[in-house]
Amino acid sequence: MNVTNKKVRSFGDDLGEVKQNVLVIGAGLCGSLLALRLGQRGYNVSVYEMRPDLRKVEISAGRSINLALSDRGFKAMRLAGIEDKVKALCIPMNGRMLHDMEGNTILAPYSGREHEYINSISRGQLNALLLDEAEKHENVKIHFNKKCKSVDFEKTTVSFEDYKTKDEFIEDADIIIATDGAGSAMRQSYFLGKKFLFSFSQDWLTHGYKELSILPAENGGYKTYKNALHIWGRDSFMLIALPNMDGSFTVTLFLSYEEGEYNFNNLTSQEKVVEFFQKYFKDALQLMPNLAEDFFTNPTAPLGTVKCSPWHYKGNTLLMGDAAHAIVPFYGQGMNASFEDVVEFDKVLDAGHQDWESVFKAYEKNRKKDTDAIADLAIDNFHEMKGHVNNVIFREKRNLEMSLEKQFPKDYSSKYSLVTFNEDIGYREAMLRGRAQDKAILNMLTDKELDLNDDLKTNLEKVKTATEEILDDDRVAKNFKH
Amino acid sequence: MNVTNKKVRSFGDDLGEVKQNVLVIGAGLCGSLLALRLGQRGYNVSVYEMRPDLRKVEISAGRSINLALSDRGFKAMRLAGIEDKVKALCIPMNGRMLHDMEGNTILAPYSGREHEYINSISRGQLNALLLDEAEKHENVKIHFNKKCKSVDFEKTTVSFEDYKTKDEFIEDADIIIATDGAGSAMRQSYFLGKKFLFSFSQDWLTHGYKELSILPAENGGYKTYKNALHIWGRDSFMLIALPNMDGSFTVTLFLSYEEGEYNFNNLTSQEKVVEFFQKYFKDALQLMPNLAEDFFTNPTAPLGTVKCSPWHYKGNTLLMGDAAHAIVPFYGQGMNASFEDVVEFDKVLDAGHQDWESVFKAYEKNRKKDTDAIADLAIDNFHEMKGHVNNVIFREKRNLEMSLEKQFPKDYSSKYSLVTFNEDIGYREAMLRGRAQDKAILNMLTDKELDLNDDLKTNLEKVKTATEEILDDDRVAKNFKH
Repeated sequence: MNVTNKKVRSFGDDLGEVKQNVLVIGAGLCGSLLALRLGQRGYNVSVYEMRPDLRKVEISAGRSINLALSDRGFKAMRLAGIEDKVKALCIPMNGRMLHDMEGNTILAPYSGREHEYINSISRGQLNALLLDEAEKHENVKIHFNKKCKSVDFEKTTVSFEDYKTKDEFIEDADIIIATDGAGSAMRQSYFLGKKFLFSFSQDWLTHGYKELSILPAENGGYKTYKNALHIWGRDSFMLIALPNMDGSFTVTLFLSYEEGEYNFNNLTSQEKVVEFFQKYFKDALQLMPNLAEDFFTNPTAPLGTVKCSPWHYKGNTLLMGDAAHAIVPFYGQGMNASFEDVVEFDKVLDAGHQDWESVFKAYEKNRKKDTDAIADLAIDNFHEMKGHVNNVIFREKRNLEMSLEKQFPKDYSSKYSLVTFNEDIGYREAMLRGRAQDKAILNMLTDKELDLNDDLKTNLEKVKTATEEILDDDRVAKNFKH
Repeated sequence: MNVTNKKVRSFGDDLGEVKQNVLVIGAGLCGSLLALRLGQRGYNVSVYEMRPDLRKVEISAGRSINLALSDRGFKAMRLAGIEDKVKALCIPMNGRMLHDMEGNTILAPYSGREHEYINSISRGQLNALLLDEAEKHENVKIHFNKKCKSVDFEKTTVSFEDYKTKDEFIEDADIIIATDGAGSAMRQSYFLGKKFLFSFSQDWLTHGYKELSILPAENGGYKTYKNALHIWGRDSFMLIALPNMDGSFTVTLFLSYEEGEYNFNNLTSQEKVVEFFQKYFKDALQLMPNLAEDFFTNPTAPLGTVKCSPWHYKGNTLLMGDAAHAIVPFYGQGMNASFEDVVEFDKVLDAGHQDWESVFKAYEKNRKKDTDAIADLAIDNFHEMKGHVNNVIFREKRNLEMSLEKQFPKDYSSKYSLVTFNEDIGYREAMLRGRAQDKAILNMLTDKELDLNDDLKTNLEKVKTATEEILDDDRVAKNFKH
């Protein structure tokens, strides 16, 4: 199929020739994929990025070095025709490797279906690939070192500053799409402009995070098991590690700023940091002789959720990716959700709308319920990762679910699987069904209404019946709430 | 009991003499009650208000002319020793008077207990009383026409502009409490300052509101039933009316800005407004010969919810009332919640904390869960008022609840009663129990598991059992979410 021109023409025809120049703010993961896809569709795309070109300069590409790529992300890669190139950059992670205080480990699989796993990928490598692919289209131009200062959403213009020359200049376009991340300058213009009713929230966790590392072994291999997401969950804080291609792991510590015996505010000396790791992450510490140095070199950063609405102003401007919905990283879905934005936007472009305002409206109406849901799910998963993975009933639930997925691969998917491996179900539906299943199983286990020694078919039916009852009761109550 | 000095001294002694000057920003309902109460406790209180003194100048006192005062508000009035004076300003409203399309009415009581009702009160009269009472204390000074421009929460200073002279000046204090309403200048300083992680949300409904009026009858009496809150619920919009002392009613239209056949954006001519009222509010229109004039004289205003955290910066500054938690008006709890803030703050002052930071922390920790809950309940009630009051199953539920409250006054309270008439239960507890009861009854009615012809005792037990099960199941599921 020739994706390049097929839909563009009909869409272009409908809108006439006037609305063909698209200005994209930000060439991160979302912006570069969007530019690629709009380039494939035939638009004139100008992308402005505040950082230098990460393919030419050694810079930190953003807030985390590696990320988890899963099925929603791959769906977007398929749409852009680059799935195979992306797969070559991936390290499969089949489950969570849980490390206890003594250094004992258990591998808890993400799914009972073998083909369902997540992947560790380098943010920088993936971004570079997307930029390369986008620039293959002569109708796509990417400008680096251009910082967006503000957006005039009524005039559809953007004011930029050139980082090198310090010159300020203004660009206009037929439409502007801001994919400039959690601290979006265009979103700030919406908020401060007070020209329309802009609903907005920023919510910070009391925990921050710091990136550390496990370096490769001397022979270039991995110092611990490669194909897992390692978790040291300690109830009120946790450490995780994801593998990199070069044999290293990127390690992230999630810890309160000010609560508890050890926190970011009081870990002020190398001795105290080592003492903390010796007490809680003994086995990790052995792999991290570079810990103390990393700890005081690398920044501590906050963890926030951003929601807002409307994403668009008339038919002029649109927020997408983290700029519209920044989430905490605990479901490994931030990048996947932003990539899925592009898939959903592409779908709306196929739907034959007559003007950009109705394109933007239809996109937000369909999409926002799902990005709201993944934001909430990501916060739930913080608690699951740091604490519940160690809880007996929670583990019984996961074991039962793994058995159900293995034995009845077509009849059962856990919440994790619905969110992560079922790209044709929206996040909201995955959340509602997944939460109802969790509630059903946890309650039946607590009340001893579920016997794990019963045959699996019996337990599958019990879980399904209880889940449907919960969904049904919620539906009745909800009808009277909205 | 001599409230004036009893607790102040021990508190004052603990903190030493240093922290005795309290600067309050805003002399609205919350600020003037706070000033009164802190004056009674012996603090030096300076209040700065941007408007002129409403006791001397004819001005609109704020966004709504009359308000619903209920038991949480009265608890605060008792604390300040002015309950009787306030009661003299009240018009009891015993229920909702529901008006259908043909002008037929039904009075739906707020409670099955006769002593449980809400009250219509004039914002201006109540505010004037609170100012009078506060100024009786020589340690309380109120300055009018002084607009807060910004707060330096690190230096504990406020920058003001005098409305008359246009002079700018700076005031300092030991602590600053901002009760400057939904558009709080101090909250804006927190947000824009970016000196700490400030979680913040503003959420707008797609509906706005406009105040209208039913004038007194020629003989000075009321043109329709006085002792009710009148509701014309039309599913996607509604009209309400609350009585005033002078025989008039303040009428409020809640309507979408841009959706539906009739909306604020397209009601642009007197003819169209009258046509709209003729079609949907025929009986109200007959009482409102002044409709068209009111409609184009009075502003249309938006309906927003504000949440934020932390409310305090160290031991220097604190947000209170609408400045900390602005809510939509549909539960009639905005003013009551702000008054309850003062009661809860007063309680913390009695608890023997050694410094202001721990006072502020303890206050927010205890209080925020409840103000979050009433914000959410208020949005639920919007949907209840405009639509569900007309629904058969919803009415069956209310009838059953009224009977239960009448027959078993000590054993059952509806959600409305828990929120409105049970000032010793926090909003959050009222919300959790109230929602579980609603869910239980609505589901049992829908599934025909509840027979309204059964004896009441049987139905009470059924409702209680089903409610406990729901609360229990939610508790198990919630333990795995946080």
